[in-house]
Amino acid sequence: MAGYLPGEQPQTDEFVKLNTNENPYPASPAVARAVEDALRRGLQKYPHPMSDPFRQKAAQVFRVEPDWILAGNGSDDILTITTRALVGGGQLLRLPYPSYILYKTLADIQGARSEEIAFQPDWSLSTRFFEGAADLRMVFLPNPNSPSGTVVSAEKVLELAERLPCPLLVDEAYADFAEFNCLALVARNEKIMVSRSLSKSYGLAGLRFGFLVAQPQMIRQLAKVKDSYNCDSLSIAAATAAIGDQQWLAETRKKIAATRARLTGRLRTMGFSTVDSHANFVWSTHSEQPVKPLYERLKENGVLVRYMNYPGWGDGLRISVGTDEQIDTCLERLAAIV
Amino acid sequence: MAGYLPGEQPQTDEFVKLNTNENPYPASPAVARAVEDALRRGLQKYPHPMSDPFRQKAAQVFRVEPDWILAGNGSDDILTITTRALVGGGQLLRLPYPSYILYKTLADIQGARSEEIAFQPDWSLSTRFFEGAADLRMVFLPNPNSPSGTVVSAEKVLELAERLPCPLLVDEAYADFAEFNCLALVARNEKIMVSRSLSKSYGLAGLRFGFLVAQPQMIRQLAKVKDSYNCDSLSIAAATAAIGDQQWLAETRKKIAATRARLTGRLRTMGFSTVDSHANFVWSTHSEQPVKPLYERLKENGVLVRYMNYPGWGDGLRISVGTDEQIDTCLERLAAIV
Repeated sequence: MAGYLPGEQPQTDEFVKLNTNENPYPASPAVARAVEDALRRGLQKYPHPMSDPFRQKAAQVFRVEPDWILAGNGSDDILTITTRALVGGGQLLRLPYPSYILYKTLADIQGARSEEIAFQPDWSLSTRFFEGAADLRMVFLPNPNSPSGTVVSAEKVLELAERLPCPLLVDEAYADFAEFNCLALVARNEKIMVSRSLSKSYGLAGLRFGFLVAQPQMIRQLAKVKDSYNCDSLSIAAATAAIGDQQWLAETRKKIAATRARLTGRLRTMGFSTVDSHANFVWSTHSEQPVKPLYERLKENGVLVRYMNYPGWGDGLRISVGTDEQIDTCLERLAAIV
Repeated sequence: MAGYLPGEQPQTDEFVKLNTNENPYPASPAVARAVEDALRRGLQKYPHPMSDPFRQKAAQVFRVEPDWILAGNGSDDILTITTRALVGGGQLLRLPYPSYILYKTLADIQGARSEEIAFQPDWSLSTRFFEGAADLRMVFLPNPNSPSGTVVSAEKVLELAERLPCPLLVDEAYADFAEFNCLALVARNEKIMVSRSLSKSYGLAGLRFGFLVAQPQMIRQLAKVKDSYNCDSLSIAAATAAIGDQQWLAETRKKIAATRARLTGRLRTMGFSTVDSHANFVWSTHSEQPVKPLYERLKENGVLVRYMNYPGWGDGLRISVGTDEQIDTCLERLAAIV
C-alpha cells in the first residue's frame, strides 16, 4: 500500500507558499489568548474526552445541540473515524474523481474497496453517483471539491442522500469560502453528515482541529471508534476561541474572496482555463502548454503551488489564495515564464 | 460494540484526583516557553508531518537515529496505528489480562480477534503467552503493567520476542517510573517496538503526545497508516521541550518514587494487599472487605481513585501517586472508612 503523500511542507520561509490551501492571515487574536489561559491552567490533567467546551460554543454558533457535534484532531481524524466506524473490510466506499486523494487511502488502510466516479466535464455529479451498489457503506462528497473549487448545490446533495442506501459525508473543509453550505440538511436527512476543518478558513492548519455535524445517534456510534482523548487541551481552547470569533471569519472570507476574483481573472488573461472557485484556491489548466514545467519554474523562483496530475483526467495547477502581495508575486513570476 | 470508557475526568477542582495516573507536578517550565514561541510563529501553516523537531531531540536523548521514532497524538494514537497497520480483520491480537482495556477495544474496532492470556497470580507471564498461534499478528505487553504496576524483566521480554512469530509492542507508558526499560532491545530484535507517553512521567496528559521506537523499516510502514498531520505545532513544540528537560524528569521521578513507597507501606498497614509498583500508581486489594464501597465513600469524601473490576480475576483500587499532601488526604479519609 502506498499511503497518502501530503503536499510539500518546507519548514522555512524561503517560499511564497501557495500549495496546501493555508490561510495567509494570522488566526483571530482570541486564539493566542485562549492558549495562554490553558497553559496557565496547566497540562497535567487529561482533556475533556469529547471536547465539550468546543461543542458547546460550536452548538451556539451553528444553532444545533452539542450532541450533534463530534470534534476531531483535524478533519482527517473525522474522515478516519467515519471510515473505520462505517466501512468494513471488503465493503465499498464511493468518492468522486478527481477529489481529495486521502479518501481512497482511507479505504485502502481499512481493507475496503473504493469506487471513484468521475465528475462530468463541467464538474457536476454523474447519474452513476446517485445509484445504489452492493455493499456500498459510505459516500464522500467534498463540497466545495478539491482541486476544482466547484460546488454541488444543496438541493442536489439532499437528492443524493435520499437516493443513496448509506451515509453521505459532505466534506465542507472549504465551505466557509462558498456562498452556501449543507449544515441545515443534517436535520432533514439522518444519512447526511457534514465535516468541517479549522485549518483553512480559521487560519489554524498548525492546530489540527476539525469537527463533524451529524444526528446524535450517529455521533454516539462514531465516538466509540475515536481515540479516547483525540483532541488536546490547548487545541480545544484554541478551537473554541476561533469558532467564537465569527467576525474575524467574515472579514477574512471577504478578503480572500476579493483576492480569489483577481487571481482568477489574471490567470484567464494569461490563457489558463480556470473554473470559478468557491474555495480558497484556484484550479488552472492550460490548453496550449504543459503545466508541470510551470510548477517547476515557479518553485525555482521561490513560489510553491500544487501541481496535480489525475490519470485519465489531466493535470493542472492548484494555486492557494494568499495575500494580495503573495498573489502578485506569483502572477508576476508566472507571467514571466508562461 | 461497546467502545472504550476512559476514567472519570471531572473538569473542576472539587476532587483530589488520583484515578487516571496524571502527574501531580506541573510540567517543565520549558514547555510553556516553547508553546509561547510556537504561538508567536503562528498557526496558519501545517505542522511537520513526521514531527521532525521532536524526533531529532528524542533521538539525541535516547541515542537512536530520528528515523527510529514515530510520533503520535498520545500513545493511544501509536497503539491505534500499529493495530491498523499490522492486524487485519479476523486476525489475532494477544494481550495479557488484566491489563489496559483499550487493547481489546482496538481489536474490536478493527474487526480482529483478541486473545487475553491471564497473568500468573504473581503477575508473571504464563508459558502460553510465549507460544505461536494461527493468525497471530501482534502482541501487546504493557510494562510496567496497569493496574498492577508490575514488570516483566528485559530478559523475559527479549525471550518473548524471540519466540513469537509476530511483532511485540512493549507499552512503556509507565517505564519512566521503573528501574529499567526495554528501549535497548529494539536494536537487538526487529520484532520489538517500544511505545512511550508524555502523559504521565512528563506531566502532559493534556497535551496528547506519545511516540514509538522501532526499527526504521517498521516506522516507514506505520507512517503510511497514520493521519498525515497527526501531531499539531503546539504539541510538537511542547513535547520537544519536555523531552529535552531530562533533569526535570529525574527530579519528578524521585519525588514520585518516594511518595509511592510511603503510600504502599501505609496501605499495607491498613490491611490491603498491595503489590510492589514500578509505575505511578498502586494496586490494592483487600481480603476482608469489598473495595467498591471504599471507592464510593472516598468519592463522596472528595477523593477520586479508580475502582477496577476484572471478571474472573477480581477487583481492586488503583490509586495514582499524587503529591504527598494529596496522598495524605487520601490515606486519612481511607483510614476513617476502612
